[in-house]
Amino acid sequence: MSRIIINGVATQYLSVMDRGLHYGDGIFETIACVENNLQFWQQHMLRMATSADKLGLAFPGEQNFLHDIHSLLAAASAPENCVIKLMLTRGIGDRGYRIPAHTNACRMVMASDWPWHIKAITEQGARVRLCATQVSINPQLAGIKHLARMENVLARNEWQDEFDEGLMSDLHGYIIEGTMSNLFASRDGVLYTPSLQHSGIDGIMRQQVMAIARQQGLEVQEVKLRQADLLTMDELMLSNSLIGVCSVREFAGKSFLPGKMSIMLRSALHRRIVEHGQVAS
Amino acid sequence: MSRIIINGVATQYLSVMDRGLHYGDGIFETIACVENNLQFWQQHMLRMATSADKLGLAFPGEQNFLHDIHSLLAAASAPENCVIKLMLTRGIGDRGYRIPAHTNACRMVMASDWPWHIKAITEQGARVRLCATQVSINPQLAGIKHLARMENVLARNEWQDEFDEGLMSDLHGYIIEGTMSNLFASRDGVLYTPSLQHSGIDGIMRQQVMAIARQQGLEVQEVKLRQADLLTMDELMLSNSLIGVCSVREFAGKSFLPGKMSIMLRSALHRRIVEHGQVAS
Repeated sequence: MSRIIINGVATQYLSVMDRGLHYGDGIFETIACVENNLQFWQQHMLRMATSADKLGLAFPGEQNFLHDIHSLLAAASAPENCVIKLMLTRGIGDRGYRIPAHTNACRMVMASDWPWHIKAITEQGARVRLCATQVSINPQLAGIKHLARMENVLARNEWQDEFDEGLMSDLHGYIIEGTMSNLFASRDGVLYTPSLQHSGIDGIMRQQVMAIARQQGLEVQEVKLRQADLLTMDELMLSNSLIGVCSVREFAGKSFLPGKMSIMLRSALHRRIVEHGQVAS
Repeated sequence: MSRIIINGVATQYLSVMDRGLHYGDGIFETIACVENNLQFWQQHMLRMATSADKLGLAFPGEQNFLHDIHSLLAAASAPENCVIKLMLTRGIGDRGYRIPAHTNACRMVMASDWPWHIKAITEQGARVRLCATQVSINPQLAGIKHLARMENVLARNEWQDEFDEGLMSDLHGYIIEGTMSNLFASRDGVLYTPSLQHSGIDGIMRQQVMAIARQQGLEVQEVKLRQADLLTMDELMLSNSLIGVCSVREFAGKSFLPGKMSIMLRSALHRRIVEHGQVAS
């Protein structure tokens, strides 16, 4: 069950004229709230503001979102683990793609139960498959966490519980990301991650992992990777805001073991969050 | 102002948990209602049922949609021209791309004012530009009129009133369609239209135009077209459910005249609608 606030008001209903519904005309953020601390809050705000700017959406500002989150979490009697989803849509418009001269962006904040089942994935490693559903190629939308995510829905629904994640490739066979995570791979101490120049979402945790690796003096390469390339790697890892970074234990029938790279990244990420990656909700 | 019925009930509000909002997880149809006749109704129903099937959405059946439309139009005192938009979303779900085991598709019907300004476009020809915003490449989604349309929004908002339509090309420079129409071109009596194998929406009016041309014994080719190819054509035309088929009078700074092809297609389309292309709403 999720609790929701729209434009500052607790409600379960939205105008059916909202352009988020009609066109996917909006953006979102998924933020881990751990014992009432919002992880990488500043980074999420920065990405949202940047994406809003690219799409010509009015960003309502950090304080409005924080205020809504306070209201949602105030009801809880103890520090809480939950998932905060922020959405910002173009708001109400009449029929047609053209953006009305005067629109008011719609700000939505949703608090959902923490997905405790991911504990098993982060501890034991993820079982990963390759999806048949492709990721779209569109350099102008690449990187942006917009609401138009039909391909992620179709890819995620290729399996039920037999895997933890599926990787999506583009028309040319380049693997871009998971349905709900970014991908990392390492070999001989070099960290690789798919280039997001043409497709995919530029995850907050992906940015953190890359920053950590560079801080440690490691070489980080954004490259084009095919399935065959992944099978030559020492380690494969997934990242997103809820799992942080976790190792892959199985991909395309091959077993992988968590190695030095994932262990280092996990522990450095943990330190980074404690030291400067969170704000109180 | 639009009138709306959701799952048979007149309302302006939708559950904020609808997956159409969160992911663009749904499909839509735009249907011309001319003097209370729904144009190419059967064809719209067939496309919607086919798309629903591809996406694993439960299609609620023609009679439910017709019933909703009757209710919406019953209030009008005289035969009416309006635009009927049908939407079918995955319905309510909790956070995450995974489709819940039990979902009820959400059926929405919306009646909007007829866009009288398109009369000038169909009579005088459309002024058309090339958009900078690209169309996505994704063979599996190509053809489907799904709700995830961020790129159409961005493309349409590159201009205000100085043009009537913008064409969108893919990463490779192939022109696929307009932001809200399909594209045709003719040269030496042959009709060309961009291939939709990798991108674009397979418009009902596009299907009709192709069928008419073939019935007339013309050669119809679905091809890869660049801007330079379009500039060598005798005529350029746009099609959608509201304008039918109309000629382009200006594209990328070059003037075009309506010729034999667009005149023939327009008159044949008119006969086709009168003879078997409509049902009473």
